[in-house]
Amino acid sequence: MEVTNRYITVKAHVEGEPTESDFEIKSSTISTSVQPGSNDIILKNLYVSIDPYQINRIKSHSASHTTSSFAVVITPGETIDAYGVARVVASGNPEFEKGDLVVGMITWGEYCVLKGEYMLRKLDPMGFPLSYHVGIFAFSGLTAYAGLFEVGKPKKGEKVFVSAASGSIGHLVGQYAKQFGCYVVGCAGSKEKVALLKEKLGFDDAFNYKEETDLKSALKRYFPDGIDVYFDNVGGEMLEAAVANMNIYGRIAACGVIAEYTGVGKRAAPDMLEIVYKRITIHGFLTSDYMNLYPDFLSATVDYLRTGAIQTLEDISSGVESIAPAFVGLFHGANTGKKIVKLADE
Amino acid sequence: MEVTNRYITVKAHVEGEPTESDFEIKSSTISTSVQPGSNDIILKNLYVSIDPYQINRIKSHSASHTTSSFAVVITPGETIDAYGVARVVASGNPEFEKGDLVVGMITWGEYCVLKGEYMLRKLDPMGFPLSYHVGIFAFSGLTAYAGLFEVGKPKKGEKVFVSAASGSIGHLVGQYAKQFGCYVVGCAGSKEKVALLKEKLGFDDAFNYKEETDLKSALKRYFPDGIDVYFDNVGGEMLEAAVANMNIYGRIAACGVIAEYTGVGKRAAPDMLEIVYKRITIHGFLTSDYMNLYPDFLSATVDYLRTGAIQTLEDISSGVESIAPAFVGLFHGANTGKKIVKLADE
Repeated sequence: MEVTNRYITVKAHVEGEPTESDFEIKSSTISTSVQPGSNDIILKNLYVSIDPYQINRIKSHSASHTTSSFAVVITPGETIDAYGVARVVASGNPEFEKGDLVVGMITWGEYCVLKGEYMLRKLDPMGFPLSYHVGIFAFSGLTAYAGLFEVGKPKKGEKVFVSAASGSIGHLVGQYAKQFGCYVVGCAGSKEKVALLKEKLGFDDAFNYKEETDLKSALKRYFPDGIDVYFDNVGGEMLEAAVANMNIYGRIAACGVIAEYTGVGKRAAPDMLEIVYKRITIHGFLTSDYMNLYPDFLSATVDYLRTGAIQTLEDISSGVESIAPAFVGLFHGANTGKKIVKLADE
Repeated sequence: MEVTNRYITVKAHVEGEPTESDFEIKSSTISTSVQPGSNDIILKNLYVSIDPYQINRIKSHSASHTTSSFAVVITPGETIDAYGVARVVASGNPEFEKGDLVVGMITWGEYCVLKGEYMLRKLDPMGFPLSYHVGIFAFSGLTAYAGLFEVGKPKKGEKVFVSAASGSIGHLVGQYAKQFGCYVVGCAGSKEKVALLKEKLGFDDAFNYKEETDLKSALKRYFPDGIDVYFDNVGGEMLEAAVANMNIYGRIAACGVIAEYTGVGKRAAPDMLEIVYKRITIHGFLTSDYMNLYPDFLSATVDYLRTGAIQTLEDISSGVESIAPAFVGLFHGANTGKKIVKLADE
């Protein structure tokens, strides 16, 4: 039997801000059975993750291409791999069988055929929605957890600032920090997001950076006693402002640079004099270095969710047609929480 | 008895690049005996340290003023405290007596009267020139040692880059790193300095940054396999170029920002994307946090000097008149090695 697979490709490398016209939907016909003797797996994709880091893979040159196995360059015209949840249609690998739910690296498409070495495991949903296994139980959650605790190294009572605080990672960072006993302020890009952070997610305070003319003064207002840990998702001017407001021995967990990915925003030029005299550490990190924390992270997170101590925000759209707009929207703050595209019913 | 004390003051706060005319020599008459019952100490200064960080104390506003007890603001017209070696003229403190050699915070002047709480200890020259106790055995040496080993955390065989490598700290960083088993390249601002690094101090390589039109390419040439540890004395464009050439898990020990102290140079805007994907750490530090290392540092350094494994470069001028030119010259690369002013014969 054969099925039609519609999937997303990029027409050419994109160096600046992405637009929907940089992408196209292609179709192919794929067989729903595997060749005897191969270890191929054919999957029907259910949910895929839409992440800003993909922008770096779409560029023709990026520091990311050679330094992270998750960020190798994407060849225009080819499928784009991404994290997601799928159901096995057919499997030449005895570890998986038809009907299994799986999670791992799939594609931005309706189906995928995985060959050779693939990163996939069987999924036990543990009673949670499948989308949680693309977001909070996957890289977004582990990034928030590892970045906050292993890189930011907060102490109870310390002051934590999170940028892009209503984003896939930021909204979890703030909640983990609150549970740990920190004072947490987040910034986001709309009144509604700010209200969500304060009213639904328990942030001590939050502000709309778009309403601020001077980010340095804004942070001074929200942190009159200074910032101890800054979880940086954005880079740019916010990073400069945070450095100016850091306390002595402050730590910056540099997770993402969304303000700089597309070359539109100004590059951060933090005051090195502050960094030296205040003994500030800026520490870039990738979640793939902290996979050993996964069991602790998962156990803590499942408990928090079951007791209602933390909540996860998801922003789910449907259908392969929505992948490109969902991705482009990430760079305009269109999403609230984890951006996910649902491709099929369970 | 009374003596005339000539000392340096700054006429007003200096916000940009300092010039000799920002300073003046003042005179006062001081008694060579102390009031009975006081713990004052009167010192005849022998050698004083001339350090770039004093520029931050001369500004009206600086991050340094509130974050480091060594960098409190200097009041125009008043004496300027600085590290140095002196001989006790009179002492109300029973721990010190007339004729003792001492080392600690004295002043940019011929004499000084220390009152209240002072930072001073008796000096055993250990057979070394007194000037060594202002340079290599003092903050310059400990900064090089602590910054390299505790902040840079090199492993044997790693590639170390040092900027301002012929300066008071840089020339020691490179030699410590060589002794430890690293590959070391330094940059400096003249052909003569470069020759000194390679021929006298045993750097594996060195280059004159003024001859390079593209620092990023220059570093690529000197570090085809990338930089593991960058000991940063300068900030600015060199920091950007270093970040671009750092290896995965690279560490930057941010010691000084001479390119930015005077507001003349461009502020570093390192590529945060490189910092994230290569998991680079930028770690600002102050030597005052590493005083616990002093015994280890001293013992290692004395051994290295006695066996001739390392050498120290000193740049000594004479007389209170030479203090302002010596200081101003630091910002134009006029010094080679540790800049010291000798104020009197031993």
